[in-house]
Amino acid sequence: MTSLDDLPLRDELRGQSAYGAPQLDVSVRLNTNENPYPLPEPLVARIAERVAEAARGLNRYPDRDAVELRTELAAYLSRTAGHQVGGDQVWAANGSNEVIQQLLQAFGGPGRTAIGFEPSYSMHALISRGTGTGWVSGPRHADFTIDVAAARREIAELRPDVVFICSPNNPTGTATDAEAVLALYDAAQAAKPSLVVVDEAYGEFSHQASLLPLIEGRPNLVLTRTMSKAFGAAGLRLGYLAADPAVVDALQLVRLPYHLSSVTQATALAALEYTDTLLGYVEQLKVERDRLVAELRAIGYQVTASDANFVQFGRFADSHAAWQAILDHGVLIRDNGVPGRLRVSTGTPEENSAFLAAAKAVFATHTTEEQHTPEESA
Amino acid sequence: MTSLDDLPLRDELRGQSAYGAPQLDVSVRLNTNENPYPLPEPLVARIAERVAEAARGLNRYPDRDAVELRTELAAYLSRTAGHQVGGDQVWAANGSNEVIQQLLQAFGGPGRTAIGFEPSYSMHALISRGTGTGWVSGPRHADFTIDVAAARREIAELRPDVVFICSPNNPTGTATDAEAVLALYDAAQAAKPSLVVVDEAYGEFSHQASLLPLIEGRPNLVLTRTMSKAFGAAGLRLGYLAADPAVVDALQLVRLPYHLSSVTQATALAALEYTDTLLGYVEQLKVERDRLVAELRAIGYQVTASDANFVQFGRFADSHAAWQAILDHGVLIRDNGVPGRLRVSTGTPEENSAFLAAAKAVFATHTTEEQHTPEESA
Repeated sequence: MTSLDDLPLRDELRGQSAYGAPQLDVSVRLNTNENPYPLPEPLVARIAERVAEAARGLNRYPDRDAVELRTELAAYLSRTAGHQVGGDQVWAANGSNEVIQQLLQAFGGPGRTAIGFEPSYSMHALISRGTGTGWVSGPRHADFTIDVAAARREIAELRPDVVFICSPNNPTGTATDAEAVLALYDAAQAAKPSLVVVDEAYGEFSHQASLLPLIEGRPNLVLTRTMSKAFGAAGLRLGYLAADPAVVDALQLVRLPYHLSSVTQATALAALEYTDTLLGYVEQLKVERDRLVAELRAIGYQVTASDANFVQFGRFADSHAAWQAILDHGVLIRDNGVPGRLRVSTGTPEENSAFLAAAKAVFATHTTEEQHTPEESA
Repeated sequence: MTSLDDLPLRDELRGQSAYGAPQLDVSVRLNTNENPYPLPEPLVARIAERVAEAARGLNRYPDRDAVELRTELAAYLSRTAGHQVGGDQVWAANGSNEVIQQLLQAFGGPGRTAIGFEPSYSMHALISRGTGTGWVSGPRHADFTIDVAAARREIAELRPDVVFICSPNNPTGTATDAEAVLALYDAAQAAKPSLVVVDEAYGEFSHQASLLPLIEGRPNLVLTRTMSKAFGAAGLRLGYLAADPAVVDALQLVRLPYHLSSVTQATALAALEYTDTLLGYVEQLKVERDRLVAELRAIGYQVTASDANFVQFGRFADSHAAWQAILDHGVLIRDNGVPGRLRVSTGTPEENSAFLAAAKAVFATHTTEEQHTPEESA
């Protein structure tokens, strides 16, 4: 049998394993920040209708520029994110991962460097490496907010080509405010003209307003979004960005032609027709997210303030052992490798209650001494 | 207004323009090798049904490994391509372009080189460059078959990491037989262990059998396919490959997680249920393709033998002027940049007749003197 080592694989891939959370068959799955609410049945019917329409022309290539979809995404952002943008300022791809890959193909790549503030969305680093872009991890405070003063010094020294700011940050839930983003943007531009990417995959769940208005007059600032979370459509793989039209032009140089299928475009357009209904679920999830934070704190956990649809909590002596203990209670959450912490996605009220019961049950045996320092759990 | 030049774009992208055929609104479009037959209405209904089912779970991420789809694609290949393969030997992505990109990320990339035999599918070169892989064009004879002896010498000297063989070749229609593929494979392996990719996007239209059986015992041989052409599903963006399971393992190291959406998987599975109906259209198209070849030759054109769903013909004094003249007759075909030649996709009988009338009308004024040498038009 041929093994990976027998193939003429690139050296840097040897010994690596594929990225991805375990897809386990557990009744309560709160591990990948999915939206727990299935799409409403009228939307399912509308998707079937729009996809059937698209399927009648499926022998033809899709609209390569996805004009209708980008126009509707722009209308959604204009209405909800506090800033007017046009379809020429929006670009869409198969998940925000592909958007990020395209950004790095155009603005990163061999001989260039990206910086992100870890712990953060691990695909920023992985896609940087996958596109040959150097990767550097910048500083956060102990409470997981970005250490802006230290970050500005690091940016001045490193002179990165791409800066990633994930806000709200995955896996910590931490938002970065406009003042901090502007300080980092200015530092990055002062060092050298460089692209600053604000990843707002969880933007709709935040207590703070979208950072979208900041793109005005800042051609090197990009905001990325996804329909996976707020639109309850992780299975659709639809990510997008808003930026200066010149950034969109740049991505057209590196995108694979016809990258976005007709069925994807049709499904996304159907979901956008149901924006208000879906944002109603977001409001329910925010209430439940705040309940998770409050009840985990009441149990005694140290909980990171969350602006996302998930909550980071701890501290555990051995986070993997604690993850397994919670899984033994039938609840799958995520070990993101942050020392002493685990991450739980907000589920339905019933799922959250099942999780909280499990979290309560494992608390005494799995948390550390320093856990109980009151000032850290505030 | 910000222009591309104001952005911190990679140097090698400056001054480039985006790839893609003009999407013009013309009544007869025979320019992108699409299948002219819309999907049958029962299949459209089945797609709507399967997508609705997928949409009910759209809040969850798709099956990351697309196991059911890969199993069905393997069954299709096993039944139609003369060689038994399992789902672990098949990988699928958003169009064969993404398959090719993943292959180059794993086996090409900076410091590595790929060779293809031009004129050929231009995305092989473009994606090579996009992934930082060096690109070299290998030799073809005047009749557009690969010059195997010269190619073996070039491979021995160049020692490429990836070899692309497009068969049937786009845009010429030329098939490469098993003997030639094996000669190139052996030369490539003798030079250094390297990946040989046979692009059979148009395989179902060929007079010769699929080259799939050659992967047996050759772990560095990969065969790529697409549902865009034979399955009449260019809008679906579903490409796939068959190879040793180790190659599939390698691609999992570079693929973006959850790259293939639930709606794409559902639509492709529905189309695979209608394989026999769709392959019936392929038979009709082969008859029409052979008619195009015969009638173009009868007009007096020099026509390249075609194993695909398109035909290359000429020779024109100025192929772009001839392209425009045919467009002025309401028929959009493709100028692929092959000197003196144009390419026409096989359409419906009516579309082909409209094209042939246009081709006849422009013959006298646009073809060159050497056109009329009898031995070249045989």
